[in-house]
Amino acid sequence: MNAEIITIGDEILLGQIVDTNSAWIAQYLGQADIAIRFITSISDRREDISKALSEASSRSDIVIVTGGLGPTKDDVTKNTISEFFKSPLVRNQHVLDHVKQIFLRLGRGEMPISNYGQADVLECAQILFNDVGTAPGMWVERSSKCFAFLPGVPFEMKFLMENRVMPKLASMRSHVHVYHSHILTAGLGESFLAEEIADIEASLPHYIKLAYLPKIGLVRLRLSATGTDVNVLQTETDKFADRISERLSKFVVARQDISLEEAIIKNFAEGHLKIALAESCTGGTIASNLTKYTGASKVFDCGIVAYANHIKQGVLGVRKNTLDEFGAVSEQTVIEMAKGVQRLSGAEYGVATSGIAGPTGGTPEKPVGTVWIAVVGKNEMVTKKFQFNNNREVNIERSTMQALILLWNLYVKELV
Amino acid sequence: MNAEIITIGDEILLGQIVDTNSAWIAQYLGQADIAIRFITSISDRREDISKALSEASSRSDIVIVTGGLGPTKDDVTKNTISEFFKSPLVRNQHVLDHVKQIFLRLGRGEMPISNYGQADVLECAQILFNDVGTAPGMWVERSSKCFAFLPGVPFEMKFLMENRVMPKLASMRSHVHVYHSHILTAGLGESFLAEEIADIEASLPHYIKLAYLPKIGLVRLRLSATGTDVNVLQTETDKFADRISERLSKFVVARQDISLEEAIIKNFAEGHLKIALAESCTGGTIASNLTKYTGASKVFDCGIVAYANHIKQGVLGVRKNTLDEFGAVSEQTVIEMAKGVQRLSGAEYGVATSGIAGPTGGTPEKPVGTVWIAVVGKNEMVTKKFQFNNNREVNIERSTMQALILLWNLYVKELV
Repeated sequence: MNAEIITIGDEILLGQIVDTNSAWIAQYLGQADIAIRFITSISDRREDISKALSEASSRSDIVIVTGGLGPTKDDVTKNTISEFFKSPLVRNQHVLDHVKQIFLRLGRGEMPISNYGQADVLECAQILFNDVGTAPGMWVERSSKCFAFLPGVPFEMKFLMENRVMPKLASMRSHVHVYHSHILTAGLGESFLAEEIADIEASLPHYIKLAYLPKIGLVRLRLSATGTDVNVLQTETDKFADRISERLSKFVVARQDISLEEAIIKNFAEGHLKIALAESCTGGTIASNLTKYTGASKVFDCGIVAYANHIKQGVLGVRKNTLDEFGAVSEQTVIEMAKGVQRLSGAEYGVATSGIAGPTGGTPEKPVGTVWIAVVGKNEMVTKKFQFNNNREVNIERSTMQALILLWNLYVKELV
Repeated sequence: MNAEIITIGDEILLGQIVDTNSAWIAQYLGQADIAIRFITSISDRREDISKALSEASSRSDIVIVTGGLGPTKDDVTKNTISEFFKSPLVRNQHVLDHVKQIFLRLGRGEMPISNYGQADVLECAQILFNDVGTAPGMWVERSSKCFAFLPGVPFEMKFLMENRVMPKLASMRSHVHVYHSHILTAGLGESFLAEEIADIEASLPHYIKLAYLPKIGLVRLRLSATGTDVNVLQTETDKFADRISERLSKFVVARQDISLEEAIIKNFAEGHLKIALAESCTGGTIASNLTKYTGASKVFDCGIVAYANHIKQGVLGVRKNTLDEFGAVSEQTVIEMAKGVQRLSGAEYGVATSGIAGPTGGTPEKPVGTVWIAVVGKNEMVTKKFQFNNNREVNIERSTMQALILLWNLYVKELV
C-alpha cells in the first residue's frame, strides 16, 4: 500500500515550525510496511487543498491530512473537503459535548458559540474521536481510497494515528503482517557494515528487507518482513538478525529499536552502574541527551558543566599546572576532569569533554573543531582526540555522540 | 514573487530525517518577502522528479530543489533534470579540480573515477559554486522561471542560498526592497499582545505587515515592509516598531531578530554579569540551550546537573533538613540550589530547577509536571511553581524556557 501526507497550514510554509509530524507519520507507517511516496505542504487556500486532495487520490491508496482543523481555521479546510467529497457538514452531538467538557475542565467557562463549529464533521466521514483535544479527526473512504483528516497538534495527531487510524489500516489488511527486527550498531560506517554482511544480505528471502539507518557514529539495521504467517515471519527474521548480530558482534549495542542513550541507561541500570559527566565544549548537551529519557535518574546523578577554567579547577579539581602547561583543550585536562567528576559523584564512570566548538577561539595549533574526550571506568580509561569542522552546532552534536560511543565501548570492554 | 520547495530523496519520506531545510529556506526567503506556497517531498524516482518540476514551474516563479545531488544519487536526479530541461550534462573542470582537492585535503587520497560525475553539470545551468562541499549547485532560468538545485546537506544548502542564490534573486528584483523590524517579547500571549496594540496594527500602511511568531512563553513580532525606497521603508517601519515597543515596553526583550538565549548572553556580557545553573528536572537542557550560542562563555562559567539528592547536598550545599522536610521538588530546595550554585561559581545570577518531568514519579500531592524554578540575583530573588502536563519532553522544554524568562525578568527588575 502507498500512502502520502498532506499538511495544511501556513506555519510550515512560513518556516515558523519544522514539520516533525510528517517524519513521525512516515516512520510509524513505514514500520507497518506502508511507504510514503509524497509529502506536500500547502496553505489553507481552497484551490490548493482541492488540488492536493485530487492529486493525492489519483496516486495513493491512503492519504493522511494533518492540520487546518483548529477552531479558527475550521471554515476553509472543512468546507473545502465537504465540497471535495460532496458531503455536507453536520454537527455531532457526542463531539460537541466532549468539546464543551474540555472547556469546562480547563476552567475556561462556558464555551463561546464560535467554537461550536469544532463539532461539525462530514456526513460521509467516520469520526476519529479525539480524546486528547477538541478537534475531531475524520476518516473517509471513497473509490477504494482512504483519507484520514487529523489535527496538526503533534500529540493529538499521534494519539489519533495510534488509536484510531492504525486499527483501521490493520483491519483493512488483516491478512498482512509486518515484523521488524532491529540491531543498533556503533563504530562502523554504513558501507563497511554492508561489506561485512554482504553474503547474509544477499541470502535474505524476498519478503525480508534490510534497511541501513545511519546517524553520527551509529548505524541502525532494520530487518522488515512482510507476509501472512506472523510466526514464520518472526522466526525467519530473528534467524537472520541473529546471524547479522553474531557477525557484527563487537559493534552491536542493542537488539531493540532504541537509541544509544536508552541502551546505556538500560545496561548501566541493570549493572547498577552510574555515570557522571564533566562537560566543557558540549556545554550540558550530553546530560540533556541522557535525561531526555525516563530512567536516566537510575544511572545519572551528577553532571558538571565546567565552561570556565576556574570551575574545572575549583569544582572538578583539575590542577592549575595541567591547565597552564597543556591548556584546557588537552588530553591531560579531560583526564583530570573525568576523574574529578567520578570522585565528586562516586559514579563508576566519568566522561569529560573539552574542545573548541567554534566558530571563534581556534589557534593554529588547536583549530576550531579540536575536541578531546576522556572516559574513565572502573579499571580502565580511554581518551580520544577529534578534529571536527567549524560549525558550532555540528561540533557539539558530534562530540556528544562520540562521548557516548566511547562510554559504551569502555563499558563493553570492562564487562568482559 | 512566489516560490516553492522540492526536496528529493528517501530520507524524508522514510521519516529518517526531519525536513529542517524547508523551514530554514521558507524563513530565509520570507525575510526577503518571497512567499513559499508549496513544499513537496519526493523520492528520486524519475517520473516523480519530472512531474514535480513541471507542476512547480506551472505555478511558481522560483523553484528551490534540495537533495538528490550526492555522489551515489547523481545519476537519477541529474539525468532527469537534464532531460527535463533538454540540456546535456557536461563535465566542469573548475568543479572537478575543486572536488579532487577536497578529497586530497580530507586525506582520502586520489579521488576514485566514480566520483568524477560530481563535476557534471547541466550545460544550460549557471554553476552555484559550492565552497563548502563537493556537490555543485545549479541555477537554471527557463521561460521566466528560475530553478535552483542545491545539495541536501544543511550547511552546504545554507551556504549556497546565502552566497549564490540570494544575490541572484536580489539582482532580479533590484527595484524591490524588503525591510524588517523585529521585537522579541516575553510574558504575554499572542492574543493579549494583539489586543494591546490593536490600534497601532490597524493604522499600519498597506505596505507594512505585522506577523506574530509565538514560541513557549515568547512572541516575536515582525514588521515587514516592501517597497522601492529603502530609506522610507526603514524610517516608517522603525517608527511603528518604536510605537509598538513603547506600548509593550515591559514585555520587550530585544529589538533584534535573536533568541531569548542570545538576548541574555548579549545583555549579561555587556553588564559583565555571569549566570550559574543548578538543574535537576531540566537535566542540562538550560546549559545546552545557552552554550549553543557563540559568546556563551562570556556569561556562563558553571552548570551543575544535580539529578540526585546527594549531589544537591554535596555539591550545591542544599541542607538535608530541607530535602527531608520539603522534598526535592519544593520552593525551599530550588532556592538553596540556586544560592548554592551562585556561591560555588561566584556568578551574579543563580538559576535552579527541580520538578517531576515524568512520565513516572508523580504523587497525588506533586503530580507529574510539577516544576519549581528559582532565580537569585544580585539583590532579589524570584521563585515560581509550574504545573505542566504529562509529556516528559514538553515538560523539560517548557521548564527550560520558563527558567530563562524568569532569569530575564529578574535581570530587568534589578536593572531599574
